[in-house]
Amino acid sequence: MSMLCRQGARYFSTSSLRSVRLIKTVPELRAWRRKQIVENKTVGLVPTMGALHQGHLNLVSQSCQENDNCVVSVFVNPSQFAPHEDLNNYPRTLKSDIDKLEALENDMKSSEIIVFLPSVADMYPSGITLDVSQQRGAFVEVKGLSEQLEGFIRPQFFRGVATIVTKLLNIVVPERAYFGQKDVQQSIVVKRLVKDLLLPTEIKVAKTSREPNGLAMSSRNEYLTTESRERAKILFEALSAGEAAYKAGKTSRQEIIDEINRVLKSSDLLVEVEYIALSDKVSLEEVDKVENGLGAIISAAIRVPNKDGGKTRIIDNIILD
Amino acid sequence: MSMLCRQGARYFSTSSLRSVRLIKTVPELRAWRRKQIVENKTVGLVPTMGALHQGHLNLVSQSCQENDNCVVSVFVNPSQFAPHEDLNNYPRTLKSDIDKLEALENDMKSSEIIVFLPSVADMYPSGITLDVSQQRGAFVEVKGLSEQLEGFIRPQFFRGVATIVTKLLNIVVPERAYFGQKDVQQSIVVKRLVKDLLLPTEIKVAKTSREPNGLAMSSRNEYLTTESRERAKILFEALSAGEAAYKAGKTSRQEIIDEINRVLKSSDLLVEVEYIALSDKVSLEEVDKVENGLGAIISAAIRVPNKDGGKTRIIDNIILD
Repeated sequence: MSMLCRQGARYFSTSSLRSVRLIKTVPELRAWRRKQIVENKTVGLVPTMGALHQGHLNLVSQSCQENDNCVVSVFVNPSQFAPHEDLNNYPRTLKSDIDKLEALENDMKSSEIIVFLPSVADMYPSGITLDVSQQRGAFVEVKGLSEQLEGFIRPQFFRGVATIVTKLLNIVVPERAYFGQKDVQQSIVVKRLVKDLLLPTEIKVAKTSREPNGLAMSSRNEYLTTESRERAKILFEALSAGEAAYKAGKTSRQEIIDEINRVLKSSDLLVEVEYIALSDKVSLEEVDKVENGLGAIISAAIRVPNKDGGKTRIIDNIILD
Repeated sequence: MSMLCRQGARYFSTSSLRSVRLIKTVPELRAWRRKQIVENKTVGLVPTMGALHQGHLNLVSQSCQENDNCVVSVFVNPSQFAPHEDLNNYPRTLKSDIDKLEALENDMKSSEIIVFLPSVADMYPSGITLDVSQQRGAFVEVKGLSEQLEGFIRPQFFRGVATIVTKLLNIVVPERAYFGQKDVQQSIVVKRLVKDLLLPTEIKVAKTSREPNGLAMSSRNEYLTTESRERAKILFEALSAGEAAYKAGKTSRQEIIDEINRVLKSSDLLVEVEYIALSDKVSLEEVDKVENGLGAIISAAIRVPNKDGGKTRIIDNIILD
């Protein structure tokens, strides 16, 4: 709450502090949205699974700057988790999320922030099971962009993401929706579904927010031990070394990936490399070299020790221009 | 045009006859729709592939009665055709379609009818091929309702339907959209996708419009020879016999289907039966008997001789209460 007090002292008397508005049902959200249209106000959407960190707050700030009002959805989406993944343990920190957004709203002065908190039954009116083979009802798939990289490791992930994003866009109908570049494949999948399904929303991708040591911010960083969290900066260091090699004139896949691998292997952290990839910026297909003018994406996933004595996946990427 | 003149004589001087408004692009349709929202006017959507018959016009009439204004989309959707099907030969009769809608609009007096004529490139901005294995981009699937009956015979059909309906609903955002009961599985698939994807549209299913002889109206009836079109009434006669058997107390699948089969086989038309089914009204799963209070759907598909010397599929159904 210190942030709130500081800003309260700067701009407001305590009594004038605004509360963010919580909306928990789809009809209430639609009614609010309809009013915005009639009043000719623009709306930004920041879809989140909660456990908000500074990366999320940066998206919300950007949304507030570019739209009259902002909806932050907080919904841990079952359909993007596999049965063996961390749906039940995913961090849920609603009180602290609301405090952070309230502080931001008071800082923003003019924008209203709506926190949209639908239930699983709201978002999956026909129910949802994690076993894909047993799932019934409407799902959205983005073929050709969902099967590689993260989609190869997590086969149902992008089907779940595409489906929930479509639902949220259908409810909120924002002028703009905000995603972080950390999940670069997700941002490409979402851009494609918006284009193909003719949704009236512009997708904005904001640069990755990082810890002081360079580690990409992620709600799942909470799983890491203090030591692991410090040493996990190796992932960004390795990708940055790949970028430096590219800037120094190395354009072949092998040269760039070798450089990333070299840095990762120099770590004294117990790092398990899942993949390192050099991919086309549009098709996400692997490329053998970075063609002049086309650029590419270098991305990687590693697994590092967590608090439970197991491993946590962390991902990161850099876009080569 | 006789209808137009008759109505012109009834209600209007020739000079006051209205023309339906044609909208050919997505941005223009969205701009028109936004104005409707600001003016608090409701909009109905009748999605069609053109070749309008009285069944379509009945849907448009109903839409005009229940909404301030009506959008009739005319779009022959490639993704619901298999490579061997009749995409290229599907009847395209735009001039006559517009004449019919113009006559109806003048009859309706107060409602405006918009004819929405998007191009394939508008609706599939990333392109579309008929070979499902080569398709890329965003598609909508309704799992559990798309694999049986028509979906068994036409494996990509409902994926194509669900995808195009989602796109049209995203563009038009109608309060209500109208479908015919003739395509009963389609209406159930669409209801489910609207529910699951949280689209803000009510789906209305209107009873099947029939020729004087009982044959369900369909744009593909144009393919039939005059003789075939007359004798194809056997399909509705057979389903009606199944309904009569049910009303007379026969509730088992075998009894009802036997009765339908008996009538079909009595025909002197060269009828090839594709399927006869007794299905649950919600899940579309086959049922062994009609449970009291649950009802069921009896449906069938047959192939009958057409003008080209080949066969044309015709389908029909009756809902048992």
